[in-house]
Amino acid sequence: MISIFANRAEALRSIGRCRSEKSVRLLIASVIAFVMAAITPPLTRAQDAAERRAGVTDEMLVGAQGASDAWLTYNRNYEGWRYAPMTQINADNVDRLRPVWVYQTGVQGGGFETTPIVYEGKIYITTANSHLMCLELGTGKMLWRYDHLLPRGVNLCCGPVNRGVAIYRNRIYFTTLDAHLICFDADSGQMLWDREVADYRDSYSLTLAPLVVKGKVIVGPGGAEFGVRGFIDAYDWETGERIWRFWTVPAPGEPGSETWPADSDAWKQGGATPWLTGTYDPDLDLLYWPGGNPSPDWNGTVREGDNLYSDTILALRPDTGELVWHFQNTPHDIFDWAGVQECILIDEVINGKKVKALVQANRNGYLYALNRENGEFLYAKPYSDGVNWAVLDEDGIPRIRPDMFEGDRRFACPGIFGGKNWPPSAYSPDTHMIYIPDQKRCTTYVTMDVTFRRGLPYYGGIPVMEEEKNATGYIKAYDVRTGEQVWSYDTKAPNWAGLLTTAGGLVFGGAPDGYLRAFDDATGEILWEFQTGSGVFAPPTSFMIGDRQYIALASGWGQPAKVVGFMNDNAGSAFYLFGIDGK
Amino acid sequence: MISIFANRAEALRSIGRCRSEKSVRLLIASVIAFVMAAITPPLTRAQDAAERRAGVTDEMLVGAQGASDAWLTYNRNYEGWRYAPMTQINADNVDRLRPVWVYQTGVQGGGFETTPIVYEGKIYITTANSHLMCLELGTGKMLWRYDHLLPRGVNLCCGPVNRGVAIYRNRIYFTTLDAHLICFDADSGQMLWDREVADYRDSYSLTLAPLVVKGKVIVGPGGAEFGVRGFIDAYDWETGERIWRFWTVPAPGEPGSETWPADSDAWKQGGATPWLTGTYDPDLDLLYWPGGNPSPDWNGTVREGDNLYSDTILALRPDTGELVWHFQNTPHDIFDWAGVQECILIDEVINGKKVKALVQANRNGYLYALNRENGEFLYAKPYSDGVNWAVLDEDGIPRIRPDMFEGDRRFACPGIFGGKNWPPSAYSPDTHMIYIPDQKRCTTYVTMDVTFRRGLPYYGGIPVMEEEKNATGYIKAYDVRTGEQVWSYDTKAPNWAGLLTTAGGLVFGGAPDGYLRAFDDATGEILWEFQTGSGVFAPPTSFMIGDRQYIALASGWGQPAKVVGFMNDNAGSAFYLFGIDGK
Repeated sequence: MISIFANRAEALRSIGRCRSEKSVRLLIASVIAFVMAAITPPLTRAQDAAERRAGVTDEMLVGAQGASDAWLTYNRNYEGWRYAPMTQINADNVDRLRPVWVYQTGVQGGGFETTPIVYEGKIYITTANSHLMCLELGTGKMLWRYDHLLPRGVNLCCGPVNRGVAIYRNRIYFTTLDAHLICFDADSGQMLWDREVADYRDSYSLTLAPLVVKGKVIVGPGGAEFGVRGFIDAYDWETGERIWRFWTVPAPGEPGSETWPADSDAWKQGGATPWLTGTYDPDLDLLYWPGGNPSPDWNGTVREGDNLYSDTILALRPDTGELVWHFQNTPHDIFDWAGVQECILIDEVINGKKVKALVQANRNGYLYALNRENGEFLYAKPYSDGVNWAVLDEDGIPRIRPDMFEGDRRFACPGIFGGKNWPPSAYSPDTHMIYIPDQKRCTTYVTMDVTFRRGLPYYGGIPVMEEEKNATGYIKAYDVRTGEQVWSYDTKAPNWAGLLTTAGGLVFGGAPDGYLRAFDDATGEILWEFQTGSGVFAPPTSFMIGDRQYIALASGWGQPAKVVGFMNDNAGSAFYLFGIDGK
Repeated sequence: MISIFANRAEALRSIGRCRSEKSVRLLIASVIAFVMAAITPPLTRAQDAAERRAGVTDEMLVGAQGASDAWLTYNRNYEGWRYAPMTQINADNVDRLRPVWVYQTGVQGGGFETTPIVYEGKIYITTANSHLMCLELGTGKMLWRYDHLLPRGVNLCCGPVNRGVAIYRNRIYFTTLDAHLICFDADSGQMLWDREVADYRDSYSLTLAPLVVKGKVIVGPGGAEFGVRGFIDAYDWETGERIWRFWTVPAPGEPGSETWPADSDAWKQGGATPWLTGTYDPDLDLLYWPGGNPSPDWNGTVREGDNLYSDTILALRPDTGELVWHFQNTPHDIFDWAGVQECILIDEVINGKKVKALVQANRNGYLYALNRENGEFLYAKPYSDGVNWAVLDEDGIPRIRPDMFEGDRRFACPGIFGGKNWPPSAYSPDTHMIYIPDQKRCTTYVTMDVTFRRGLPYYGGIPVMEEEKNATGYIKAYDVRTGEQVWSYDTKAPNWAGLLTTAGGLVFGGAPDGYLRAFDDATGEILWEFQTGSGVFAPPTSFMIGDRQYIALASGWGQPAKVVGFMNDNAGSAFYLFGIDGK
């Protein structure tokens, strides 16, 4: 299949550059049909047609890591690695990487955070404010787009963003800021169904890329800053019917409800919204999907207790939503350290023995390793500079340092945005390292009284950010076997850009200054950089078109915050395809 | 000087890529100082310092064509050629042209039409809605920017745009949509003065790049669609004081007033706004600056007569604004064919003898050649497809075809936007050709009654555009010696993108589909193309940085109009620097 698709992609590329488009398209279609008929025995052709009708199957998603001509799921593989196993772009030639085409989305007013999905010569990207575009992979030409009409009064804690779509069979799954999950035909862009996941008037929203596991389209909302109750939902891929819902705040009487005050409605406004895409182990058949911060964010007095399953790694059965085990990184969080960061699933030697591990660079500043079969704690190491808020006991349970409180204030590192926020880490099985986009900006939290009102902010305090001159950010490389730092790169401003590793020995990552860079994965040496013209949030991706490897990136800052002394805080929204020599 | 600036540009480029910026900057500054001291004899150094203080002088502007490391005035030279005399990028290597850096302005809502000014390692660009940015040439890093606060109620016929700044001495001159002319220090961005050229509440606006001639900063407003009275103004470069004003509609009793109805205020609302940058012949000391369309646009009954100096090429003395000669391309225009297109000044053999000529691809569909010493008519040839509105007599005076009228309607080709609108043509002395960005979309004009009210639209009719499927556009190459077409390239949609020629035998031009292309200047063969991600309006430019030649382009469609079947009508605002192999 791959070689045929490659030819098709190449053909499409030629077509896009030809001015008498229609006639050449017909001609090439004829040639492809002829060649396929000539080289393909009848039986294979029938299988091929069936497979094409099937689109992206469960088997393909399980094997997504090896599909060099595609990027089929948010983190490239279910295990959350963001590791492209191609070697064509490497330390010897990466300095020749140049743009092949650029697509300016024309959408502004939010960060451009999309992870593109790539399949059969098409690339699917999303932008802030709930826009979805399908582009021709070879040329960047728009094939179809969907512009979601948002109602007035959509409340968002942190600006309008979207992190990408999911693909399954021949369908595209897209979430919107007003908390809808929408299904499209991948080829035509025809809308097939539109499901209201939650009521945006409660200030629920959806910003994540869905995850599809065995025909279930799995999503989790944001909204904890407005006192909603979190959940993880699974929808039938074909009909859009909901199959199960796991509430990330238990109701009274349910397991975990003992971690919330009795005789109180606090659980109804408990937050713990699981707003980032989870990971999945097909062998163990376990879904790893953490809950976010509890509500209200900074005033814990109305919710005494550990507040499960806020800031908690959850291991769920994807067929039923049954909870198998859980590990709470930050009990009774009063820092807004939504621990929704991706859980990367790796089999490595940790503490002297090979283990099915899960590693997570949590927003609370610690890098965790757990046994993913049962949630057993392996280690937790501070990866963020100056982590000051807790001492961890031998089971990884943090004990908050009482001396950090001064009346209604506390000065904590990491700060409000955490050590690592949503931008994806990446893992390389070659170096055994996890690469973490890290930021440092400590914060003084001031507690305030708070009253819940539906749909309105439910913070319970004010975060006072450290001075900008004291803020910075990093790309940090940690050996996952030991939890020890190997190298770090200072981005000179809080780093919001996701990462990619490749078998070519490279780490790709953007920065607030607008550069996309390639680093030697072992040493952190900068091997290449390109100025994309706006600060970068999005993670790079990589895939083959025909016999050539490419790197793709969305570039667009879209944050109101200034980045002092470092370009580029201009709003941007350009999507790049890079290839060696720009070909 | 050029080699020293080249070194400095190179040095800046290195600095921009270095992370310990400040120390390296100091180091390189020291090295440059040392090298300059070592290689430069004392007298020359003193001269050099004086020259540096002088900035861009009159002599440099007269010789701007030869300043390979700069782009000093809107059309590159006073004569309006847009011809870069460098050969490093040529037919042999242009296929290796790739982006070096991109700058996303973050400004949307209008076309991105800027011609950048390049001088001493800095590049000055402007965007829609009156933004001005100074970038480091080697890296695209923003050094300073000015965001003009526009009042509410700025009326524009055709969307917010700006076409670039002027440079003189060490100052930058910038026009705004609310009709101000503002002067900045070129290095620091400090505002030195801000002059109200006209009252925006009359619906005057400024969108053009100023032209500086002998210390006079010359501008002309738009606003004819709102019944203003046009003028050309000259301001003192240093103080901003107005030196002269030439009204492009004469007052009663003045020469030309006989072409307006007597006993009527029509002249007060007569339009003829000269909203594009003129050209200049230093030897003849004549400024060529045409007036635009008369007001009201489409109802001529309230302004019987030829309506001088609407749609009229004016030859003025730059010191005084004195009118030396004039030639009216479209007397009594009822089509909105603002004949403000640049007059390209060339010395060529026309009609069998060498002549100081002026050629202009006028919006009315004809390519004109005049003797620029006296305005003598040489030829006019239709360059736009299907020109149907007139027959020209032997002096180039058009006689409108009476059979095109059907009651209050007339169907004319070219249409409302003309054959060529504002996007600049380019001329190559190597091929003796003028290259014209042309569009074809015929229009049915319906005349309507109209009453003047200050600041409000004063159209007197409605233009009904031809169906989109019948519309197209071209790059057309004409031999200026004969006015005959040599080649044309179909852009498949009305072409709004300006052009550049080079001594490397190339024509560069964008298109609505978002591609920037390089053509063989003799044959029109496409030698290279790059998808910039948004439809292109702006003209490309070229200059050296150190010993390497570059191409620069603003890419950003910004028009609400759809371009059926052709990407890319997304709003865009990315500025590109291209070099061979992206270096």
